[in-house]
Amino acid sequence: MNIAVAQSGGPTAAINASLLGVVREALAQREIDNVYGAVNGIEGVINKNLIQLNSLFEAEDADLLRQTPATALGSCRYKLPTLEKDSEIYKKITDCFLELGIKAFFYIGGNDSMDTVHKLSEYFSKNNIDIRVMGVPKTIDNDLCETDHTPGFGSAAKFVATAIEEISLDSAVYNLKSVTIVEIMGRHAGWLAASACIPHVNGQVAPHLIYLPECEFSIEKFLEDIRNNLKKYNSVIVAVSEGIDLRNLDPTLRAGKVDAFGHQYLNGVGKCLENIVKTEIGCKVRSVELNVLQRSASHISSRTDIDEAQHIGACAVKAMLDGVTGKMMAFKRVSDNPYSVVVEPVDASLVANNERFFPKKWINDEQNNIKDEALGYFIPLIEGECNIKTKNGLPLRFNIQNILK
Amino acid sequence: MNIAVAQSGGPTAAINASLLGVVREALAQREIDNVYGAVNGIEGVINKNLIQLNSLFEAEDADLLRQTPATALGSCRYKLPTLEKDSEIYKKITDCFLELGIKAFFYIGGNDSMDTVHKLSEYFSKNNIDIRVMGVPKTIDNDLCETDHTPGFGSAAKFVATAIEEISLDSAVYNLKSVTIVEIMGRHAGWLAASACIPHVNGQVAPHLIYLPECEFSIEKFLEDIRNNLKKYNSVIVAVSEGIDLRNLDPTLRAGKVDAFGHQYLNGVGKCLENIVKTEIGCKVRSVELNVLQRSASHISSRTDIDEAQHIGACAVKAMLDGVTGKMMAFKRVSDNPYSVVVEPVDASLVANNERFFPKKWINDEQNNIKDEALGYFIPLIEGECNIKTKNGLPLRFNIQNILK
Repeated sequence: MNIAVAQSGGPTAAINASLLGVVREALAQREIDNVYGAVNGIEGVINKNLIQLNSLFEAEDADLLRQTPATALGSCRYKLPTLEKDSEIYKKITDCFLELGIKAFFYIGGNDSMDTVHKLSEYFSKNNIDIRVMGVPKTIDNDLCETDHTPGFGSAAKFVATAIEEISLDSAVYNLKSVTIVEIMGRHAGWLAASACIPHVNGQVAPHLIYLPECEFSIEKFLEDIRNNLKKYNSVIVAVSEGIDLRNLDPTLRAGKVDAFGHQYLNGVGKCLENIVKTEIGCKVRSVELNVLQRSASHISSRTDIDEAQHIGACAVKAMLDGVTGKMMAFKRVSDNPYSVVVEPVDASLVANNERFFPKKWINDEQNNIKDEALGYFIPLIEGECNIKTKNGLPLRFNIQNILK
Repeated sequence: MNIAVAQSGGPTAAINASLLGVVREALAQREIDNVYGAVNGIEGVINKNLIQLNSLFEAEDADLLRQTPATALGSCRYKLPTLEKDSEIYKKITDCFLELGIKAFFYIGGNDSMDTVHKLSEYFSKNNIDIRVMGVPKTIDNDLCETDHTPGFGSAAKFVATAIEEISLDSAVYNLKSVTIVEIMGRHAGWLAASACIPHVNGQVAPHLIYLPECEFSIEKFLEDIRNNLKKYNSVIVAVSEGIDLRNLDPTLRAGKVDAFGHQYLNGVGKCLENIVKTEIGCKVRSVELNVLQRSASHISSRTDIDEAQHIGACAVKAMLDGVTGKMMAFKRVSDNPYSVVVEPVDASLVANNERFFPKKWINDEQNNIKDEALGYFIPLIEGECNIKTKNGLPLRFNIQNILK
């Protein structure tokens, strides 16, 4: 039989490792003849834009996929409509798979992709079409339900923790009071912003304050927190999630700059808080948006994360061959120390269109920092360095075009 | 005799390696008894805030200074007034040095620091005071005269080149037209922004456009460049120096957002160009400010840079013992391939208050990219990885407070 694999949603440093895991495991199995990669996610299936990946199995430099961020096969943000709304799409997908003898489809992605996995597997089952559909998790947000964590998160957390510690050293050099606000990704979930606490394990006091979307945000309390910390420290470091709720804020406070006529416009969270601190406290303030490097900084990816991402891709292939369909492979943590996880299938329907939030039990009473208890969760996920292969001082990458020639 | 050392100006990933170089070399010389570190640059001398660094020599973990960004001794932005303006300051500095038996002062910094080196050495010479003053270069901007390059630049360039390549992979995943603008530090000099061209050596096409402060900037030409590249590529990557001249720009184009009453405010270069592309071209646009990680990302520092930073600190000590004063140690490149440099003293007065710009000969005719000829200059400076020691998945740092107990 043949299989197909695709990548979807926002890039991560680990999603190509999962692709490698799927392809390598599939081609090591004698039941599987060909592996196709759909270009730009499920859109590649709909548009019959697939490429044969068999030679990836033997490519000497395929391991470079482990140090190549973003999606080697491209990505999409396509939400599969319901069968009732557009049955043609389901027929198109089925036709494509049948034409190429594809008996299983592996979708590496987040909760939207798991929605696709669920819908497609339901459709195939109900219509007695023998095509299995498996989900492989991926997101730096770590907000997928039914799994201890998601591939991509560990590397993002390692970058965030390393960067915030380097920024805190940078911010502390002058003998003056200053506030540095670091804006961190994660949408409505605070996992990645919370990972800014990791430097605490090595004795760093910074970041002094961490704000998550899981807590109510009060600008008065925020300013009080800053003032209290400025009494104790010259340089105060603040980690803030992009998802904190500023809707209750006085609109004049959200303004980038107020012009002579009192008009203003809305800023990002970090810039917004920077302006508020500048106006209300008046000390030196800087905001830093870590931006897309959070999900693409493969040069400092977590060895644990990359190994696990590859492994869970391989596990999905094995589970499919055991007859599993409509499931996402998930991590279940056995213990923090020594770190141990098992991989098991969970219903994709429980992951689809759902979010998992940072546990309240790990947020301090003041709701402005993370308890040390959370460190046992975070540390194993960022442990280990990948032995990055370089050329001319830069990391080498794998370009999937190279195997198509 | 005793000596003193201080760090000044903006932090880099390499300035602590130079500190290590000065201290290790000094204490290996039998003429030198004690090494003092002035806290927060020359201000530490003026305020008699110095700490003894002898135990750093034997501290087993002092090598961690090589992977610790920012200034272990703190920094300042203090411009030494002329003797005519404030002779008291000169007396204070002299008193401090004489009191502690300090016969030589090493100032690790940029062109303002070299101004201090020049002024102090002139003062001591004219007044027959036997104190030598030596400069050790440092800046990510690479804009110091009389030297092939500056410690700190190689690591910054390695981060910039790695980051822009990762951002370009991240930006290319969707099947849609997009422009990504990366804003890079460097003040009035384009060296660091130009280093964004380094991925070209490994066959990457991105960044497609690079704009430096050394060229005149025309918004019409910029938009034409973007449009031309969008015809050829889905995802266009633009590197832009923070120092490009937007003064000729129609003020309405510089606005972050224009409100309902037509009022606007000024943005940073990246954000400003993002808004212009959004308005004029209308495709997906993102701007990324690499921000302070450019100077503090020790986790990906250049081995060449860190080795050289330590070496040039040691060379300054040796030159001082040979009787040199009022000089900055500088790199003179012998050859690109194999890479070879020698270290020699140059007049600090030639470096003080002066800037060195990116050579026009390495900018393409269209003034929107860097010629491949420049790669031979850049590559050796970013070569080599530091073997970063980690704990709990994060780089370990050296805290100078640890040796004071």
